Amino acid sequence: MDFIGDPEISHGVVERRFDVAGDSGVVPGILWTPEDATGGRPLVLVGHGGTGHKRMPYVLSFARRLVRHRGYAVAAIDGPGHGDRAKAAEPSGDRPPSASIPRAFLSSIADAADSMTADCGVTLKELQALDEVGTGPLGYWGLSMGTMLGAPFVAATPEVRSAVLGLMGTFEDSNPWTTGAARISCPVLFLVQTDDELVPPEKALALFRTLGSTDKRLHAHPGPHAAVPLEEVEASEAFLAQHLS
Amino acid sequence: MDFIGDPEISHGVVERRFDVAGDSGVVPGILWTPEDATGGRPLVLVGHGGTGHKRMPYVLSFARRLVRHRGYAVAAIDGPGHGDRAKAAEPSGDRPPSASIPRAFLSSIADAADSMTADCGVTLKELQALDEVGTGPLGYWGLSMGTMLGAPFVAATPEVRSAVLGLMGTFEDSNPWTTGAARISCPVLFLVQTDDELVPPEKALALFRTLGSTDKRLHAHPGPHAAVPLEEVEASEAFLAQHLS
Repeated sequence: MDFIGDPEISHGVVERRFDVAGDSGVVPGILWTPEDATGGRPLVLVGHGGTGHKRMPYVLSFARRLVRHRGYAVAAIDGPGHGDRAKAAEPSGDRPPSASIPRAFLSSIADAADSMTADCGVTLKELQALDEVGTGPLGYWGLSMGTMLGAPFVAATPEVRSAVLGLMGTFEDSNPWTTGAARISCPVLFLVQTDDELVPPEKALALFRTLGSTDKRLHAHPGPHAAVPLEEVEASEAFLAQHLS
Repeated sequence: MDFIGDPEISHGVVERRFDVAGDSGVVPGILWTPEDATGGRPLVLVGHGGTGHKRMPYVLSFARRLVRHRGYAVAAIDGPGHGDRAKAAEPSGDRPPSASIPRAFLSSIADAADSMTADCGVTLKELQALDEVGTGPLGYWGLSMGTMLGAPFVAATPEVRSAVLGLMGTFEDSNPWTTGAARISCPVLFLVQTDDELVPPEKALALFRTLGSTDKRLHAHPGPHAAVPLEEVEASEAFLAQHLS
């Protein structure tokens, strides 16, 4: 793990940009920890949404919340083709608003699931080797693309004690997030937006029902895909803390 | 309002059986208040489920919880044909388990919605005249039949500041709980069981979407109709308290 540049410290939160050597190239990430942290603590991996990146506003905000309120370590890496992994010819973040998820996007994320699981695994191992992180309780939080790529990772990582997933549906009989969901057994909070223009609520309900966990709950609110209310940010924090603290 | 028999006091909760004169006969109810209560306080009306009654175990338990934890007043009345209003020839509580709600039951409850709204209104007025209740903040909690009869009541009662509803669906285009739901504007917590043998989750989702309230959330869990977990009892208490305390 190489730390890139100097740490940035703001209101008690240390933010460090890092690179990890993945099987298929460099994996760029960010680690947030409490200022002056020493010794192990719970770690939450956060998966960002499609067209976003490891430091998009809601990732940054949620990471800082967990560090400040709970003293956790939080890390996020760029998804394949996103953030610092976007190819120059295919910049992310410039997709026009859509009334559905393009099939090509669904396919490309499905194809990337195995390598993203491997990238998360390598990153996790390197993070846990840090004194200020350690091998404490592990959680995962990721919605939308963060569930498409996160469900397979959580399924492959029995260390994960609890996960917040959602804003995603079954879509096709065979895709990595649906087959992954069926193999998850940790407690899950699953978030749904009932006016989601990208994920029909019925398909989201179907993905929730597919989850292998017996300890699971779905929280739904009105509003479009990107309008998850603060109430569920708070519920996410409380839910993770219930299992990690 | 006539109190029947002596109050029963247990662990700080006073339970009093009462009768109120309704438009279409006597309305039997129970009021729970803190021991030695004086002066006004929040009041929560609880609607029981089909084949149950005003003192069925989960009503009693939730009422005592709100009195003990929050110092609220709580009241429940028997639904039409239930509890002390059951006709001798048609005792309630002896219906065999069913894989769906009988159409005759749906029709009978739909037909009873207006008179139940009137009964609740009369009861409310008499309760609010008591010194130890008063005209403080008002909440409603009722699942299943407690939503079939409760949604029309809440819609007709702008004083209700927040309501917990659920375990019910749209079923038919025209029924009082669906048309009532559309006219509700207070904050709502709506509970769903995704393996509900009586209410398909898709119909429950449709009823949630029908709710007129902009401030609403749906919480769903796996399991059958009657298996609402303790987590949602706690969430119900917290949600009501957020708006009534």
